[in-house]
Amino acid sequence: MFETAEVGNRMEKETYKREVPKVRAELLEVQKRLAASDLGVVILMGGVEGAGKTETVNQLLEWLDARGVETHVMDEPTDEERERPPMWRFWRILPPKGRIGVFLGSWYTAPIVCRAFGTCTEPEFHEALDQVAAFETMLGREGLLVVKFWLHLKQKALKKRMAKLEADPLQHWRVTERDLKFVKKYGKFRKVSEAALMRSSTGEVPWHIVEAEDWRYRHLTVAQTLIASLKEALAERAAAPKPKRAPDLSRPPKTNIIRSLDMAKKLGENAYERRLLKAQAELNPLTRRLREKERSMILVFEGPDAAGKGGAIRRLTQAMDARTYRVISVAAPTDEERAHPYLWRFWRNLPRLGSVSIYDRSWYGRVLVERVEGFCSKEEWQRAYAEINAFEEALTNFGTILIKFWLAIGPTEQLRRFKDREITPYKQYKITEEDWRNRAKWDAYEAAAVEMIDKTSTHSAPWILVEAENKEHARVKVLETVLKRLKRELK
Amino acid sequence: MFETAEVGNRMEKETYKREVPKVRAELLEVQKRLAASDLGVVILMGGVEGAGKTETVNQLLEWLDARGVETHVMDEPTDEERERPPMWRFWRILPPKGRIGVFLGSWYTAPIVCRAFGTCTEPEFHEALDQVAAFETMLGREGLLVVKFWLHLKQKALKKRMAKLEADPLQHWRVTERDLKFVKKYGKFRKVSEAALMRSSTGEVPWHIVEAEDWRYRHLTVAQTLIASLKEALAERAAAPKPKRAPDLSRPPKTNIIRSLDMAKKLGENAYERRLLKAQAELNPLTRRLREKERSMILVFEGPDAAGKGGAIRRLTQAMDARTYRVISVAAPTDEERAHPYLWRFWRNLPRLGSVSIYDRSWYGRVLVERVEGFCSKEEWQRAYAEINAFEEALTNFGTILIKFWLAIGPTEQLRRFKDREITPYKQYKITEEDWRNRAKWDAYEAAAVEMIDKTSTHSAPWILVEAENKEHARVKVLETVLKRLKRELK
Repeated sequence: MFETAEVGNRMEKETYKREVPKVRAELLEVQKRLAASDLGVVILMGGVEGAGKTETVNQLLEWLDARGVETHVMDEPTDEERERPPMWRFWRILPPKGRIGVFLGSWYTAPIVCRAFGTCTEPEFHEALDQVAAFETMLGREGLLVVKFWLHLKQKALKKRMAKLEADPLQHWRVTERDLKFVKKYGKFRKVSEAALMRSSTGEVPWHIVEAEDWRYRHLTVAQTLIASLKEALAERAAAPKPKRAPDLSRPPKTNIIRSLDMAKKLGENAYERRLLKAQAELNPLTRRLREKERSMILVFEGPDAAGKGGAIRRLTQAMDARTYRVISVAAPTDEERAHPYLWRFWRNLPRLGSVSIYDRSWYGRVLVERVEGFCSKEEWQRAYAEINAFEEALTNFGTILIKFWLAIGPTEQLRRFKDREITPYKQYKITEEDWRNRAKWDAYEAAAVEMIDKTSTHSAPWILVEAENKEHARVKVLETVLKRLKRELK
Repeated sequence: MFETAEVGNRMEKETYKREVPKVRAELLEVQKRLAASDLGVVILMGGVEGAGKTETVNQLLEWLDARGVETHVMDEPTDEERERPPMWRFWRILPPKGRIGVFLGSWYTAPIVCRAFGTCTEPEFHEALDQVAAFETMLGREGLLVVKFWLHLKQKALKKRMAKLEADPLQHWRVTERDLKFVKKYGKFRKVSEAALMRSSTGEVPWHIVEAEDWRYRHLTVAQTLIASLKEALAERAAAPKPKRAPDLSRPPKTNIIRSLDMAKKLGENAYERRLLKAQAELNPLTRRLREKERSMILVFEGPDAAGKGGAIRRLTQAMDARTYRVISVAAPTDEERAHPYLWRFWRNLPRLGSVSIYDRSWYGRVLVERVEGFCSKEEWQRAYAEINAFEEALTNFGTILIKFWLAIGPTEQLRRFKDREITPYKQYKITEEDWRNRAKWDAYEAAAVEMIDKTSTHSAPWILVEAENKEHARVKVLETVLKRLKRELK
């Protein structure tokens, strides 16, 4: 794969001088079109250490309008970053629509380094690359163009470059310990990098391998490739039909997992009081142990309006310290959130180690309300199942304890509760016009829920279905489920 | 001051039981009104260690609709926080309009602790409190209500509480080393806290001192005080006249600091090339030393359209490593930014140590374009001078190198440049309708600039006025100014 970048590509000074003004004008022109579009751009600048990545980025930034570009150096993660799944540090800096983010170092660095040093196995390496591929595909579909450059140097050229830099008193600072270590490991890195690039050079998000020895050739090739990629992506988006957004009013199967729940389950007042207090007393010290064990927890609550999500959450938080938990209610996204992939607003709020985030509605809105009401296209909610599974896998692989509750009630019980809310003064704030409108689409919401449960109940993050017509039963089931899980995870 | 909270306030169980439902209903009611308003709320829960702050916050959260509240524990700062001025960690979590943030630990903690342990002097202590007072006043004017609680315990009561907790096997974990140290230092803390509270209990943002021994009294007093404060603030805002926003078309004094600049200053091509290259060569290693010296730098560029801000910035970035700098162009705020005090969007983007942020337009928009075009009220831009000075003082006190450039050109030169932009293909993207509209208000912009320079040229952050009709002179002056400053600061 790298052979094509070892042929001695060079560019004459004259050619360079002639081409640069054209390239600059084109870069500015295409950047201007980008700023007005709903496309964001991530440029990954990878490659051999010492191949001149930073130098080329410096040049690009000089040619572009620097105000629309942000450069991110992915060195050692900060402590805030270490307390979240590895991809968090990339998510938090994804550029919004219309802007360019240049990453020096990327989500390929960790898999390549760990494989080159032998700290992960071949299957683990491939697994990591598959996750990266899925991530890049998702970014592309969500409106982020990823342009990947790999600057390549032959070992001989690398050694020559290092020697030259080391001899130059003004430049020798550029040669780091890490570079020298890398020169020694060149063969191993080359092999691993090649494997990584092969596996991740998809038609959608290809790698551009650039021979790096001659700086004129390197700068100009990167710039021209970037221009071509941007033009193509902008043209594609302009030509693509607007995604159709229409309400999805599917009907649920007559027998389904929600309807098959035993809604008669109930708990008497005495048993309720006893089990509630017992569970709460046990829960308190366990949630405090999260910090000590360096774990975090995310609880997700979904279910029809008036299913008792708030009440169940309150029984949990009663037993928890305000220092450890946060209840997040998912409302309409802000404009910054809308300018990013839809999962961005959940990534950005991931809890630190030792903390608990409780979601009153969640990222599942994509396949529930957004699907039913037509706030997103069919293509969008259909691919969301896999995207959500990947997101949750990133969480659970990191050690986040994730529990998802579906609180189930039937339409008759919902009506009774709506009416009750209307006549109880301190509950009136809970009932809105929208609740009545949603109720009219009961079947469509049930169909969406059934499909969601089916497609996102994974081994590490299964849905817990809670028979919620009897509130006491539901609350105790939620509490005891959390408790059992914490005991298992924190022992 | 604390004597009123040492009188043995208690609440009978019966009274408590009777009052709680009322308080809960009122809390929810007022929180609902808050959510629909343009007011945000910060609740500071301070006081004696062991007085039950967390317990009361837990109770409040149970009574409130937890979805509108976020709790923040201000323990040890993270490394990302340590790389910014001390107030950054508070700015980044200020609640947006309509929401409540509860802070356990606050901007009072550091001054009180450092004074109690004698690590800062009395004048430093008072200086810190004055800054806090100015900060709180600003928050209030920007739509954030600060409600400050101080939970007080007599030393005897504190000792009793500690002993009781320590004896309880389920609770003794609550008593930390820090608590015990605090019990010993009670007298000192009491004195310092009292001084801090006295100085910061303004009519606008008073402290509510609550006797903390009896939990029923404590919970209910806090809740009732919160309800009253919220009601009062909401009523005040409802009654307050809408701030009038009108363009400010003042005229500048005939002789003023900008007009008195010697616009004939120029640099020949040879001298320009020589000095530019020399300065750039020196600048490069200096900016790299920022990291080593644990400093960051912020450069601000203001001036009329076409004054050459972009060109001057490019001559700087040419000499810098893409890893170290970021060019920030200030555009319209996002809706998240609009839901916060206007300086929030600048605070949130403060550079890490070792980094340089270059602003192409800046927070001075408040007293320039927003003033002239009437995007904010007269009251808002008039108080902005002091608020900006306080912001910049926070930066420079932290060690941030801050340099502010005003690039001055006259109206005739601007016209020449506009026309040039219109006929040069790769410059056309720079000229818009808006530029022509702003040009028509030249005098008003000049008046605003003159006042700005006058009121925000402080000792630690003076304005550097740059005669910019000759671009070569301007660019070299900017570069050499940065250079000189870096040499002085990093030696």
